[in-house]
Amino acid sequence: MAIVRKNILNVKPYVAGKPIEETKRQLGLKEVVKLASNENPLGASPKALAAIKKNLSGINRYPDSQGWYLKKRLARFLNVGPLELVLGNGSDELIDIIIKTFVEDEENIITADTTFLEYEIIASVLGREIIKVPLKYFKYDLEAIKKNITKKTKLIFISNPNNPTGTYVTKYELQDFIKGLPEDLILVLDEAYDTFIDVDDFPNSLALIRNKNVIALKTFSKAYGLAGLRIGYAVARTEFTAFMERARQPFNVNLLAQQAAIAALDDKRFLKKTRKIILEGKSYLYDNLHKMGISYVPSVANFILIDVGRDCLAVFKDMLKFGVIVRDMQQYGLKNFIRVTIGTKKENERFIKVLKKVLR
Amino acid sequence: MAIVRKNILNVKPYVAGKPIEETKRQLGLKEVVKLASNENPLGASPKALAAIKKNLSGINRYPDSQGWYLKKRLARFLNVGPLELVLGNGSDELIDIIIKTFVEDEENIITADTTFLEYEIIASVLGREIIKVPLKYFKYDLEAIKKNITKKTKLIFISNPNNPTGTYVTKYELQDFIKGLPEDLILVLDEAYDTFIDVDDFPNSLALIRNKNVIALKTFSKAYGLAGLRIGYAVARTEFTAFMERARQPFNVNLLAQQAAIAALDDKRFLKKTRKIILEGKSYLYDNLHKMGISYVPSVANFILIDVGRDCLAVFKDMLKFGVIVRDMQQYGLKNFIRVTIGTKKENERFIKVLKKVLR
Repeated sequence: MAIVRKNILNVKPYVAGKPIEETKRQLGLKEVVKLASNENPLGASPKALAAIKKNLSGINRYPDSQGWYLKKRLARFLNVGPLELVLGNGSDELIDIIIKTFVEDEENIITADTTFLEYEIIASVLGREIIKVPLKYFKYDLEAIKKNITKKTKLIFISNPNNPTGTYVTKYELQDFIKGLPEDLILVLDEAYDTFIDVDDFPNSLALIRNKNVIALKTFSKAYGLAGLRIGYAVARTEFTAFMERARQPFNVNLLAQQAAIAALDDKRFLKKTRKIILEGKSYLYDNLHKMGISYVPSVANFILIDVGRDCLAVFKDMLKFGVIVRDMQQYGLKNFIRVTIGTKKENERFIKVLKKVLR
Repeated sequence: MAIVRKNILNVKPYVAGKPIEETKRQLGLKEVVKLASNENPLGASPKALAAIKKNLSGINRYPDSQGWYLKKRLARFLNVGPLELVLGNGSDELIDIIIKTFVEDEENIITADTTFLEYEIIASVLGREIIKVPLKYFKYDLEAIKKNITKKTKLIFISNPNNPTGTYVTKYELQDFIKGLPEDLILVLDEAYDTFIDVDDFPNSLALIRNKNVIALKTFSKAYGLAGLRIGYAVARTEFTAFMERARQPFNVNLLAQQAAIAALDDKRFLKKTRKIILEGKSYLYDNLHKMGISYVPSVANFILIDVGRDCLAVFKDMLKFGVIVRDMQQYGLKNFIRVTIGTKKENERFIKVLKKVLR
């Protein structure tokens, strides 16, 4: 008997975006711009910050284990029932909860080979087989995924829009894909970036949850600016959520996150401002990359995958020296690519300036 | 193929202590005292509250995935290395991480039958067998536990002091117990309540981590008053923590919890005040229960298990009507017992007054 589980030995640890403070300290820099983790460059919603201050004195108490007030508010916002929601310590935890709830040891999971890394990491921690189907022109290849489905397949994870490519599965493609799926297979649509969408043919996942085996994942970490607080949620029919609730730990979502999320949902102005700055920033970055003759993948999210045409780790390191943190795509297997989060006007200008310097 | 995993059907959901707001709303009460979840009745450390305010503007950023500053501070505080620590979203999550890291499907876990319920719940979510050995006079029966160890046994959870009995395993008992353990078995000492200890023979778990297969679990939810923020940690030798880090999700501990915990560790005055109020409150409650002719289990923690001599659910409900929330022990299988958290002087007086009324 070994001291550690066999499959733990095969888990590849996740490499997070480099924190601002650490970069300042290590490189002796005064001003550092972080465009590495698809965070909201405007900060958090002022309404959320006010809600946190108001609830500070209660943090000696455990959070509401049912998340009742947030679920009620979310249900109204989404036009679903409160019991069709499961709250998580970020979407990461919901991925863990979903696998624990639905996938037996001998069953498997399918996703893309260049997508959010946590699907594979969490599946491998839990000792579940995960099949990674190559992207086709930077997009989920739904036909190839369908061909990989066997009797063992229980879950499919689709990151839509896909992190790190910024591409998306259209509603027409999704309709076709769902038609032929086996009855007992569950499709997870991870829509962390859906608030940035600027196209008309993006699927409406919530319209599917009652008649299809679909679970939608949403987060407050991106557009709502609450990444540091950790809160996401799943939407699914009650038959699924009731089981997921059994796998959820009672106090998984902290008290301040619950209160901040309630307030952030009401802050339409902040969300509007965020969308505006991201869409304007995207145009600016597209224009400048085009002028520089640099290829990128058109994105419907708040980040852009850029082909730098040379070793991405070197580009990452060189940009770091000038105080700009981007994400090199080494870990994702895209060795000549970096992913840049769309920032404020000033941050985007700085990024372009430094990228020019580094690629010169 | 069923839609849900077989073992999820057998998970008994955890029933949390009733929240104050919910009780007020449901019963139309203005003043409600919660003595149900072993929280700090003084609130959170003022230094922790100040640290949260100071870091509020950064919550749009992901937390430090390594928890570097908190680990450095904790290491100094505990006199261990930073790499001998793993941070968790409360101790609950660390239990999940430990089982995922070390216990294979076919291995088993031993604990007591009347102890912290999450050991059993989390093991059953993960589909691991858990053997529950009866307490002996409200204490962990280490001899009986030893007899239950087989080749399949990988983990033993000891809640020390034990929730919900308030009893503890002494250093002499632990020394003897550890001597005969198989080489590849890991002992988890869950010391959530160790800051309230007022005895001299409590074990020093940290002295064991380098030479024995011991993992100590600690929390900021009790004496440090940060239950709402969710933060706990494990101390073990680096051979163990390195594997546990692979099972941990990168952003499991939120940013404000990390900052609050750093500040709380420095607030010796708050901790001293907390200990004082708990020890004084314990004397007061002991005295009054004694005068009322009511039996209780002597406790080294911040709660007392009380034999009310009748159906505990009825007592719980009757006390609730008078605005005092205690914990009935139905779920723990102790049908005539309630568990009361030691509160402020005023709260303890209210508890005794209402208990007298209800038991009359």
